[in-house]
Amino acid sequence: MSDNVVHILGFAGSLRKHSYNRAALRAAGELLPEGMTMDTFDLSPVPVYNEDVEAEGFPAPVQEFKARIAAADALLIVTPEYNYSIPGVLKNALDWASRPPGQSPLAGKPVAFMGASSGYFGTARAQYHLRQVCVILDMYPLNSPEVFIPAAQTKFDQNGRLTDDRTRESIRRLLLALRTWTNKLQAKN
Amino acid sequence: MSDNVVHILGFAGSLRKHSYNRAALRAAGELLPEGMTMDTFDLSPVPVYNEDVEAEGFPAPVQEFKARIAAADALLIVTPEYNYSIPGVLKNALDWASRPPGQSPLAGKPVAFMGASSGYFGTARAQYHLRQVCVILDMYPLNSPEVFIPAAQTKFDQNGRLTDDRTRESIRRLLLALRTWTNKLQAKN
Amino acid sequence: MSDNVVHILGFAGSLRKHSYNRAALRAAGELLPEGMTMDTFDLSPVPVYNEDVEAEGFPAPVQEFKARIAAADALLIVTPEYNYSIPGVLKNALDWASRPPGQSPLAGKPVAFMGASSGYFGTARAQYHLRQVCVILDMYPLNSPEVFIPAAQTKFDQNGRLTDDRTRESIRRLLLALRTWTNKLQAKN
Amino acid sequence: MSDNVVHILGFAGSLRKHSYNRAALRAAGELLPEGMTMDTFDLSPVPVYNEDVEAEGFPAPVQEFKARIAAADALLIVTPEYNYSIPGVLKNALDWASRPPGQSPLAGKPVAFMGASSGYFGTARAQYHLRQVCVILDMYPLNSPEVFIPAAQTKFDQNGRLTDDRTRESIRRLLLALRTWTNKLQAKN
Repeated sequence: MSDNVVHILGFAGSLRKHSYNRAALRAAGELLPEGMTMDTFDLSPVPVYNEDVEAEGFPAPVQEFKARIAAADALLIVTPEYNYSIPGVLKNALDWASRPPGQSPLAGKPVAFMGASSGYFGTARAQYHLRQVCVILDMYPLNSPEVFIPAAQTKFDQNGRLTDDRTRESIRRLLLALRTWTNKLQAKN
Repeated sequence: MSDNVVHILGFAGSLRKHSYNRAALRAAGELLPEGMTMDTFDLSPVPVYNEDVEAEGFPAPVQEFKARIAAADALLIVTPEYNYSIPGVLKNALDWASRPPGQSPLAGKPVAFMGASSGYFGTARAQYHLRQVCVILDMYPLNSPEVFIPAAQTKFDQNGRLTDDRTRESIRRLLLALRTWTNKLQAKN
Repeated sequence: MSDNVVHILGFAGSLRKHSYNRAALRAAGELLPEGMTMDTFDLSPVPVYNEDVEAEGFPAPVQEFKARIAAADALLIVTPEYNYSIPGVLKNALDWASRPPGQSPLAGKPVAFMGASSGYFGTARAQYHLRQVCVILDMYPLNSPEVFIPAAQTKFDQNGRLTDDRTRESIRRLLLALRTWTNKLQAKN
Repeated sequence: MSDNVVHILGFAGSLRKHSYNRAALRAAGELLPEGMTMDTFDLSPVPVYNEDVEAEGFPAPVQEFKARIAAADALLIVTPEYNYSIPGVLKNALDWASRPPGQSPLAGKPVAFMGASSGYFGTARAQYHLRQVCVILDMYPLNSPEVFIPAAQTKFDQNGRLTDDRTRESIRRLLLALRTWTNKLQAKN
């Protein structure tokens, strides 16, 4: 059986324009392996979650987000770490996307994480919390490689281009692994 | 040395009007022990965090939130659990409050958690993630009692009044323990 | 392509003879679906891990444990919860099995968790810690169903037989899901 | 009120003779501030936990461990990270010490963590799991500083002496903070 092209949706959990994580997402776009395409989504217009608002209908940006997730074979989530956990901004978007129960477009999606921070850990704590979230979302995170980008200020240039070769290589390997993982999970057996 | 009155700030991590967690926060207001007062804050007007926005000045609701935290001796955080973790809404508010580094009003505050869910665990998974967040926020969570309110739909009446005596008693004990804990941490030694 | 028979290795993280978790493991043995067989391993003879001991050669019970893992298609780990985390006994056995780096028989194995406790949570906190351990072990845990057996004292009879029908049904579904998951991960695509 | 001398008990979660974590514990012994003394305990003779064994009486090394904990004002736990979590060896010792319910000598103790690893994170993942364990053990971990010793092979000499000045300084600050924290928690208010 030949593998299919894998279409992924990538999004970053920071709204800051010059965010290292948005820059890392752009870098991923340059590093896609053959057989993989990437669409991106900007979380900026997603409002704070409120079930009363949901009851009146999903806001347009949330509808769009859910549709883009549904259309993807797999996700690439690029997360900052805020206060030793998932940024509220990112968790909020996932909370919206998970609704309503039983109709989450996230269910069954393979997913890869990466993240950049100015500190030592490169968002590891946020990523482990995200992995717990994936259990209930029924998402399938890659085990390996884990991409942590510490000391991000030394790895991107003034224009937000990822210049660190080792990090570029690790992102390349992440994308390859995500392609393989997605093909495996999609295979009819 | 006689203990001082402890002024707490309580807030709930759900924006839904008829939220069980907002109802649990109101119940806490009725169950305050002697020597404790509670102010509450509604997270609804807090926008999604964006460092670029912060750079231009904190939005008014965030300024208000930070001031109210600063004025409190301790916090009571009433959290739903969304997708096995902290609701984005609540995490987002804490992310705002923690800014800028070195000037967080959260630092040094004693804190108690409680939460209500319709499922079995009563928000335990969200609370353990919050406890990890407290490490970097330099907050001091109570170890015990832990207040988990599972099957919330059976414990509040139509008007959102907490009718379950056992839960009322556990909230009462939580508040007492928070008063004692706050007095201990504030003591000059 | 027809599915293959799935041979699993089951083990419990308690050494107590009348442990509910050992009883739950026995119950799983009675509830195996067609196309699945289960071997079990008793962790009792596994000594505490010491790298200096490892350097002189793996103790016989550890060799046996590693061989049995290697021979299995998937694992069923039945875990108590000790002090809000993985029992030392169980973690210790996994630490041994993971050695040496690059030669762990655990790598690539699908795995399902279940656990019994006398309290409310049925070992959930231990299971989430185990899930984090699986990332580095490169194991593939089932997302769903999660089998938590709270109030275990009401669900087993005097002879350690699982009498609670709902729990029996949830274990049956767990085993079925593990069979499907293992077949999917083993499929050549 | 003048502060009292703080007597701490330190132990390392590795049994390997030339363990970096045992070496870090020795370094702590050299770096104690005025007003603090440290006793150490070697976990090697602690057997794997078994409730049936406990029912016949605590093994002598466990009795000794419990007595030494009881005699201390605070604990210093030096933990390796095994498989992204607490080493089984260390968790096992804590499981023994926590028994029986209601008579744990760990309850109420202030505690500080540190840990050394050859990788990037310096045992952070193990330490966050330990912090969750502290909730039920009713222990009081320091929030700050957190002492993570990554790339340990570059920071100790052939004789296991900690030679890295920055790490020595961080341990010194940890011990000072533990002294202050213990005095605060012991103060009668």
